[in-house]
Amino acid sequence: MARFASFDDLRAACLDLPQADEAARAGVARREARLTKPPGSLGRLEEITAWLAAWQGRNPPRLDRVEIMVFAGNHGVTAQGVSAYPPEVTAQMVANFAGGGAAINQLAKLGGAELRVVALLLETPTADFTEMPAMDEAAFLDAVAAGYDDVSADADLVILGEMGIGNTTAAAALSGALFGGGARFAGLGTGVDDAGLARKRAAIETALARHRDVLGDPLRAAACLGGHELAAILGACLAARHKRIPVLIDGMVSTAAVAPLKALRADALDHTLAGHMSAEAGHRLLLQELGMTPLLDLGMRLGEGSGAAVALLVLRAAPACHTGMATFEEAQVSDKPR
Amino acid sequence: MARFASFDDLRAACLDLPQADEAARAGVARREARLTKPPGSLGRLEEITAWLAAWQGRNPPRLDRVEIMVFAGNHGVTAQGVSAYPPEVTAQMVANFAGGGAAINQLAKLGGAELRVVALLLETPTADFTEMPAMDEAAFLDAVAAGYDDVSADADLVILGEMGIGNTTAAAALSGALFGGGARFAGLGTGVDDAGLARKRAAIETALARHRDVLGDPLRAAACLGGHELAAILGACLAARHKRIPVLIDGMVSTAAVAPLKALRADALDHTLAGHMSAEAGHRLLLQELGMTPLLDLGMRLGEGSGAAVALLVLRAAPACHTGMATFEEAQVSDKPR
Repeated sequence: MARFASFDDLRAACLDLPQADEAARAGVARREARLTKPPGSLGRLEEITAWLAAWQGRNPPRLDRVEIMVFAGNHGVTAQGVSAYPPEVTAQMVANFAGGGAAINQLAKLGGAELRVVALLLETPTADFTEMPAMDEAAFLDAVAAGYDDVSADADLVILGEMGIGNTTAAAALSGALFGGGARFAGLGTGVDDAGLARKRAAIETALARHRDVLGDPLRAAACLGGHELAAILGACLAARHKRIPVLIDGMVSTAAVAPLKALRADALDHTLAGHMSAEAGHRLLLQELGMTPLLDLGMRLGEGSGAAVALLVLRAAPACHTGMATFEEAQVSDKPR
Repeated sequence: MARFASFDDLRAACLDLPQADEAARAGVARREARLTKPPGSLGRLEEITAWLAAWQGRNPPRLDRVEIMVFAGNHGVTAQGVSAYPPEVTAQMVANFAGGGAAINQLAKLGGAELRVVALLLETPTADFTEMPAMDEAAFLDAVAAGYDDVSADADLVILGEMGIGNTTAAAALSGALFGGGARFAGLGTGVDDAGLARKRAAIETALARHRDVLGDPLRAAACLGGHELAAILGACLAARHKRIPVLIDGMVSTAAVAPLKALRADALDHTLAGHMSAEAGHRLLLQELGMTPLLDLGMRLGEGSGAAVALLVLRAAPACHTGMATFEEAQVSDKPR
């Protein structure tokens, strides 16, 4: 039997979410106040430690097992000439991941994370969504389930990334469906030229008009306009929530992929952090719509989970300080004011 | 014989600066263009690799030996009630560094860096600069020389940080002297209350008025308004330039400490990067005056080199990607456009 039998079945799973462990969060705050530094002076590092503890339900939190999951898929909309690269690059880059030659391989190694690449039906691209829904219900649910079932129960943190020529077009279209404004989320992707950007915008506008009747439902919008890898990311993000595993989201495509969860339930992304602000033009708008403040802003726009993997390096600083630092009493440092 | 015999002698050293190795920089750019990613898609990571190579004069650059230098000093201006903590905390925190209990200890370990703490005359604070120059010429030059001589010739990167109760007052005063606008660089430091902030602003305005006649000279301004640890940071930053070692600057105090170098010569900080944007209010203004774009903005305001030490974690990603990634040819990935 399938993991999710229908849109309705998946929607029910998206609405049934565990909450954070507030006792673990409070325990972090109590120790934080006693460490040898002015209160709050580690800024977001302090928030990160509390967030990790709250979602792991563990104080102190740990980052022993970090999984970077990169989902890959192909997109029928590439027929509209929306990308600077040909669609066969998706499979070539999956081979490059396997060979250890991509940016994400180096970043996973540096960050002490396990890299898992999941190629989804690369020989069977989604349909061109300017003409019909990218996926039917069954195909969409299969991809969601693939992501859902791939999350390890014992991961301390999951990073969600992607590879898929054409998928910034899908991400921008899905964002437009969820938040309005047509093609305003379209950017240059891998580096399309002006004519390509015009084709990309046109494809998005065409798709938004064609599928208008079903776009009020976030899951149907994801099926119509998304892709296999976006659906898998949605599934993985949902599984992480159900398993109480915090998640680092990568850039434009990963963020758009999980956005339907928030459209269904306002607190659905509370177990996630945005790893970075992508240079892909729509990402800033999308993060604003979602109310997310990214950890980094380094002008990256590569996908593969690469921005979030760099953010992992920073994330590790938070529990390292929290766990390793001495308290005022231990270090015999005068606490606060005269 | 002293390292620097006079203000004039030091000024001459500040004006005699080696330039970057443009051949190494160009070599990085050539390889970068062949790596399996859209051109420019690693954003600032690509710039960082080129910057490291240019200043190390080595392609590819390396980060095998990273030194975090934390200079500590005490400040007579604390008599004006400008800090939330008593001045004895400076020595207590130096002991905490030695015991491994501070934030910077954890961050140095995480980042694979060597931590060196240099306490400068903690029993002999600078004079209260609301009444007289913080240091006379000899004391200032001694502190500059201490920093200058402490930089290891074989470091691949130097991180400059500090500890000193009262030193955000000194940093704000020095910034005001260099860039104008009186006390506009004053912030809350370790967490002073409203009355304390008012005293801090008043102390700065008093000092700027008292020493007005000599503040046109950046080095005399640094002697009048700075501190032993700020002077040492200036010296270390200058030594790193002379030795062709790239530098990561930390927050408000470290940035103010090196600002006189830029006032003397416009390209004097080209071998440095701002590790982060501190939450200390004046830092944003100061970075704007210096034309520096920080790598991180995490709301940190601890000093100790902590923000730059977190930036080091990100910095390591740059050469890791550059060196480890496959080229399009190696990975048999279709390069660019159809």
